[in-house]
Amino acid sequence: MFIRNAWYVGAWDHEVGRVMRRRILLGEPVAFFRREDGVPVALEDRCCHRQAPLSLGKLVGNTVECPYHGLQFDATGACVKVPSQDRVPASARVKSYPVVERNHWIWIWMGDPAKADPALIEDFHWMDDPHWGFGGSSLHVDANYLLLVENLLDTTHLPFLHPESLGTGAFARSEFEVTREGDRIKVTRWLMDQPPAPFHQRMGDFADGVNVDRWQIAQFAPPSFVKLDVGSAIAGTGARQGDRSKGMNMFNLNAITPETEKTAHYFWAQAYNFKLDQRWISDLVRQQVNAAFLQDMTMLTAQQQNMDLGPSPVVNLGQDKAWVAMRQIVARLVAEEQQTAPRSVAAA
Amino acid sequence: MFIRNAWYVGAWDHEVGRVMRRRILLGEPVAFFRREDGVPVALEDRCCHRQAPLSLGKLVGNTVECPYHGLQFDATGACVKVPSQDRVPASARVKSYPVVERNHWIWIWMGDPAKADPALIEDFHWMDDPHWGFGGSSLHVDANYLLLVENLLDTTHLPFLHPESLGTGAFARSEFEVTREGDRIKVTRWLMDQPPAPFHQRMGDFADGVNVDRWQIAQFAPPSFVKLDVGSAIAGTGARQGDRSKGMNMFNLNAITPETEKTAHYFWAQAYNFKLDQRWISDLVRQQVNAAFLQDMTMLTAQQQNMDLGPSPVVNLGQDKAWVAMRQIVARLVAEEQQTAPRSVAAA
Amino acid sequence: MFIRNAWYVGAWDHEVGRVMRRRILLGEPVAFFRREDGVPVALEDRCCHRQAPLSLGKLVGNTVECPYHGLQFDATGACVKVPSQDRVPASARVKSYPVVERNHWIWIWMGDPAKADPALIEDFHWMDDPHWGFGGSSLHVDANYLLLVENLLDTTHLPFLHPESLGTGAFARSEFEVTREGDRIKVTRWLMDQPPAPFHQRMGDFADGVNVDRWQIAQFAPPSFVKLDVGSAIAGTGARQGDRSKGMNMFNLNAITPETEKTAHYFWAQAYNFKLDQRWISDLVRQQVNAAFLQDMTMLTAQQQNMDLGPSPVVNLGQDKAWVAMRQIVARLVAEEQQTAPRSVAAA
Repeated sequence: MFIRNAWYVGAWDHEVGRVMRRRILLGEPVAFFRREDGVPVALEDRCCHRQAPLSLGKLVGNTVECPYHGLQFDATGACVKVPSQDRVPASARVKSYPVVERNHWIWIWMGDPAKADPALIEDFHWMDDPHWGFGGSSLHVDANYLLLVENLLDTTHLPFLHPESLGTGAFARSEFEVTREGDRIKVTRWLMDQPPAPFHQRMGDFADGVNVDRWQIAQFAPPSFVKLDVGSAIAGTGARQGDRSKGMNMFNLNAITPETEKTAHYFWAQAYNFKLDQRWISDLVRQQVNAAFLQDMTMLTAQQQNMDLGPSPVVNLGQDKAWVAMRQIVARLVAEEQQTAPRSVAAA
Repeated sequence: MFIRNAWYVGAWDHEVGRVMRRRILLGEPVAFFRREDGVPVALEDRCCHRQAPLSLGKLVGNTVECPYHGLQFDATGACVKVPSQDRVPASARVKSYPVVERNHWIWIWMGDPAKADPALIEDFHWMDDPHWGFGGSSLHVDANYLLLVENLLDTTHLPFLHPESLGTGAFARSEFEVTREGDRIKVTRWLMDQPPAPFHQRMGDFADGVNVDRWQIAQFAPPSFVKLDVGSAIAGTGARQGDRSKGMNMFNLNAITPETEKTAHYFWAQAYNFKLDQRWISDLVRQQVNAAFLQDMTMLTAQQQNMDLGPSPVVNLGQDKAWVAMRQIVARLVAEEQQTAPRSVAAA
Repeated sequence: MFIRNAWYVGAWDHEVGRVMRRRILLGEPVAFFRREDGVPVALEDRCCHRQAPLSLGKLVGNTVECPYHGLQFDATGACVKVPSQDRVPASARVKSYPVVERNHWIWIWMGDPAKADPALIEDFHWMDDPHWGFGGSSLHVDANYLLLVENLLDTTHLPFLHPESLGTGAFARSEFEVTREGDRIKVTRWLMDQPPAPFHQRMGDFADGVNVDRWQIAQFAPPSFVKLDVGSAIAGTGARQGDRSKGMNMFNLNAITPETEKTAHYFWAQAYNFKLDQRWISDLVRQQVNAAFLQDMTMLTAQQQNMDLGPSPVVNLGQDKAWVAMRQIVARLVAEEQQTAPRSVAAA
């Protein structure tokens, strides 16, 4: 079960154009394309006539022509043409999902369109901020999407799963603080006066032997966003007090969209505020983060396989506090939505 | 659920010989072979002893030897030898399906053998008629078989799915008439004074710029046959009134046999009555029709994938009249059969 | 459903070392490894924290470190370290399965550990007996494990499935005797004064034209072991009366462990008591038996596929007496176990 009344990321901006792109989101088939004026559109990728995928058809101006019998739908999902007859049945339409293009992502609202307020879109301004550069990509997740949210909220896995890039021995025992603000969760960690992680040393140009104060401030927002403010500064130069000038700062930005109960789409970017004039940094950042995330994907797939073998007892640890809260929030929001939703929406 | 008391096509004649061929039909495993005198036989491809597929065994004269423990079955399905003992249990037998070879196809009756009257076999005489040539083949359908019957009964898809071969713009708005005769359905279309479809122009040698009167008369017969009488004649030369001499005529012959609820075997042929002395016509016809049918297969697979995502509202159009009636007929025949069938047959 | 309170073979001795090996047994994920002193260990391959497979982690001395968050488990399955906190929750543990290394196999007890008496391990001493050599291997079975036990208990299939190696025409009609001793079943066959099977002729160096007395004495022991005492001696030299000196003797040793309801692990060895100084005999024996067993695997897969199509009537023959008894024993033992097992074990 998924939270439907929420903005999810459906695609990267560059993935959507004048050739339709099919993607399964929250179990529903969606066809993305752009109108002639460039505005992105998302229609149900299933013709209301014989359920053909519209994405196999073609764009005729701002309308979509079904590949099977040529029905045409405008960007609101209304059928505007039935080739075989003059009358277009009033009920002939496919779902049109509210869509907003923002911060290089195409956002989509899978629930009640009346509630789709763009002001609710999660802030990912870094990707449009001249003070930041970024590298990003996407991955397919062969596991339930919440396993990935867990992964991002409990970074004590870094020294074990990513020892050659992100983790350091000090990580596991770092103190952390979990705070709540409504349904948002914040996990703050500081690792004071420690050798830098390999990736941080490279990005921050820290000399060999120099210790750093490292921060990692993760923020969860429903339905499934995690943003991590991360960085390292030369130890004792006041980063924790607010002066990050002696170090480097990155924002790891994560948007996870369920595909099915056991698969998901993972959109991510890594923003940085250094060497903005050097284009290769973006590629390097993307490459490094992608390599680490592939390690996570292997783990999530393996977890899901074990879970698919059947239930087994589990033990929660102190480090799990944030994601346990996250799961409670998601479960509550799903339950609330199902209670209040009209039956037709609940059924879908 | 399938209509069981009906003749289906199980194989092409050339597919069945002295090496057994396994095929799943209506969810049951069937082994086809020919007796020494050439008569085709279809036995359940599942030994009554330990359920080994007989088709992995060998033919010993007119009997089949199970590959596992050597039980032998005659062409009636009766076990005639148990190597390990003298006594052959009376209940030792596999199903033997009534089989008839006719019109290049091997016909099989999957229901109550007592009702298997060869007179009920659908007429496909064109493949044996000296006034006709034909090209044919078979395809595997990754979708419910009725989606293919729909496809053949609503040819308004031609200009959209097959624009380079079969469709012309005029097709969608062509008038058509649906008539019923018992459980048979006839859909008659005439496209008067139109440019010929590319395939028709090629087959009919129509000069560039010449318009044609085109006919398409589809006939459905249960459980899942569709025959299309199609052709084009020079416009105004009286084809609609009965004189087809100024054009070319083909019969598109389709036999669809369910494999499982979501897959099927598709046997088809295209008969033609021109240039019968030129062998290459048969190959060309087969090639052209096959190319168009592969486009249909892509569509059916995509429909089935969308349907597998769950139910969604559908709208019927005027053009759907024939296949809506077809589905009602099939559903009624299935229901009738299940009410009257003895439990054992119904369970199978 | 499986018998859980029993010793199964989980691996060959050489398969288990200082790199963990994952294997699904009776539906549960198991990680095998050896302690620093060489003693084999089997832990649940599913961390009690977030269900990561421990086998993706690493060995730290005699403890296993989870690849995800670094929890460490000792060889008893007790969690001994949680990197992020001092306190190790008392409930933090994974199952540790009783394991015994014996006769080149790693034995594992999947049920109640309190009942895991090593004295119950099935005797396969041949693999450690200086009077015997052996060749062995393992195969994956794409079918329910009992189909393989059946196969080994009813060797009337030899002339049909293995005519070029093990079977001879006389086999099917050979008399056999089935005896029971508790839950053990013995099937004794003698083929007197017959041409030797090709494999036996090769192994026994029988001259062309010499007939042999051949024996095949199969013993079933729960949950799923079959040992076959097989051999041939020159006809009339008293083998049946006890003097096997004029022939050759082999023991075909089979341990079958369910993986899932429809797959299994097959561990087998072929022991022989001739030419023990000639190393190539072991390879030849392994090669020959493996080739025959691959034929069996093809058959079992095909049987399972037919069974998956749905139930169909079956006929039992006199030759099935042994495996029918075997299935009754297994079913009874499963039922008894489920009645007496505490709920938690029954649920697992």
